[in-house]
Amino acid sequence: MDTTIAFAGSGLDRADHVRSDADKLAALMNWRARLLLLDGLDPVIGEDGALAWGTLADADPAAELVFLGLADDGRGCFAAVAPALVGSVAPPNPRLWQAMSTLPAGDLATYGGARSLVDWHARHRFCAKCGHGTVLAKGGWQRSCTNEACKGEHFPRVDPVTIMTVECQGKLLLGRQPRFPPRRFSALAGFVEPGESVEEAVAREIHEEAGVRVRDIMYVASQPWPFPSSLMIGCHAYADDPAITIDVTELDDAQWFTRDEVVYAMTGAEDGAFIAPPPFAVAHHLLKWWVARG
Amino acid sequence: MDTTIAFAGSGLDRADHVRSDADKLAALMNWRARLLLLDGLDPVIGEDGALAWGTLADADPAAELVFLGLADDGRGCFAAVAPALVGSVAPPNPRLWQAMSTLPAGDLATYGGARSLVDWHARHRFCAKCGHGTVLAKGGWQRSCTNEACKGEHFPRVDPVTIMTVECQGKLLLGRQPRFPPRRFSALAGFVEPGESVEEAVAREIHEEAGVRVRDIMYVASQPWPFPSSLMIGCHAYADDPAITIDVTELDDAQWFTRDEVVYAMTGAEDGAFIAPPPFAVAHHLLKWWVARG
Repeated sequence: MDTTIAFAGSGLDRADHVRSDADKLAALMNWRARLLLLDGLDPVIGEDGALAWGTLADADPAAELVFLGLADDGRGCFAAVAPALVGSVAPPNPRLWQAMSTLPAGDLATYGGARSLVDWHARHRFCAKCGHGTVLAKGGWQRSCTNEACKGEHFPRVDPVTIMTVECQGKLLLGRQPRFPPRRFSALAGFVEPGESVEEAVAREIHEEAGVRVRDIMYVASQPWPFPSSLMIGCHAYADDPAITIDVTELDDAQWFTRDEVVYAMTGAEDGAFIAPPPFAVAHHLLKWWVARG
Repeated sequence: MDTTIAFAGSGLDRADHVRSDADKLAALMNWRARLLLLDGLDPVIGEDGALAWGTLADADPAAELVFLGLADDGRGCFAAVAPALVGSVAPPNPRLWQAMSTLPAGDLATYGGARSLVDWHARHRFCAKCGHGTVLAKGGWQRSCTNEACKGEHFPRVDPVTIMTVECQGKLLLGRQPRFPPRRFSALAGFVEPGESVEEAVAREIHEEAGVRVRDIMYVASQPWPFPSSLMIGCHAYADDPAITIDVTELDDAQWFTRDEVVYAMTGAEDGAFIAPPPFAVAHHLLKWWVARG
């Protein structure tokens, strides 16, 4: 496990057995319990540069509480689904990218998991089966339909996404999404769809976005990505034909970069052939892995 | 890519660009279009042992149509979300396990993807954000909220699941779920949760279910599993301490098996130390991979 991957490595014990044990859960919701402080969906950073925590008394009395897990000292850790968040869709706040580079790794992971859960609760107030209201259940790891004739159970979503580098004749294929900062290139990516394996999704996405056919797909690393709830599955593949045909609805550009160009960009330099993805992105690790293989 | 993995390797071109192009999509819904015939959510098998297809005229006029992709000859392939399916939850039919062992691999993959999609539409009729009704959009790869003030967009779910073998002192850890046939043992498994990487999910699940701590987790293979829409992520890991503590709410039993015991069970023998998972399960491939490594 590469614990240097951003958003992985939370120090909390998820304590799965507590979620379905109403007595244990209630016993943990005491005055010692910790509440993750949030500003909307953004983290609140303390003066020590770490996540700021309060007590359950700090939560809006109308909020639903999500059980995040147990701290080292056995205290229950919670996050609140505040009424103000309900139904909203919150894109990542630019200030957040700053916080990502300064928060301790374990804190960033705890925050990411909490953000995904709180965001999911805020956007899943109704039963997709029957349209009735739902209520939080199992410490926030389920929502249950209030319609007695339905009793639908709904679970937080995790959406698998493939993200991949492609190698051909010693060069690496990287692409630019329109929303990227100028000169930034990164690994191509796309959601895994129903009915395909990770390897099929990798091959399909590279062909759709860049017109390149690949072989020998291998897994490299994974990352939870809380915007809103992706599981990034990082892969590497090989191509025999470097001809590129870009899908202009997905990409601004796609190019093959030499090893020297990738090595230079990965130093953080901004005057090379391209600007590399930032350290908190799993794409950064894919490039680092490729460079290290030599 | 291991194309021998069941439910992977559909021959259809997903033709992503068609989904958001209403004109192209309408042009494909002609008399030449193929409709995947379903009996509830089960496949209809023709006399040739392959999936049976009809035309769009065979669909219930009230059904929603999902675009599965293009056949080799350019014809559009569709599946119908029949009104009778709406809101139902259909567990896998025992007859289906038989079909899995006889359908051509590409057909099984096409069926699995179609089943996941149709099942998702049948169970997602309402907007989780606001409770209003939703309608099929983008050829069935989206549902859109009909509430003008909401306009929520919802996408078919794919739930990543880790499934893993563990090795300690040359033996392999396998477990029994209560629903398994007698003497069947298979790889442990569990859903990836928000806020964790694949590797973290593997380590957590093995510890939760068997009380075993693992290291050096590696990816082996993946499989789409359409009951209802999992992405199985097959891994292997190592343990130093073989002491087992079973979570009795999840498992009936968990044991370490020798290489000889695994080799014998993988011949299909039912008189060995255990009965191996069937060839259509990704766990079968994990065991095959472990045996082949020697």
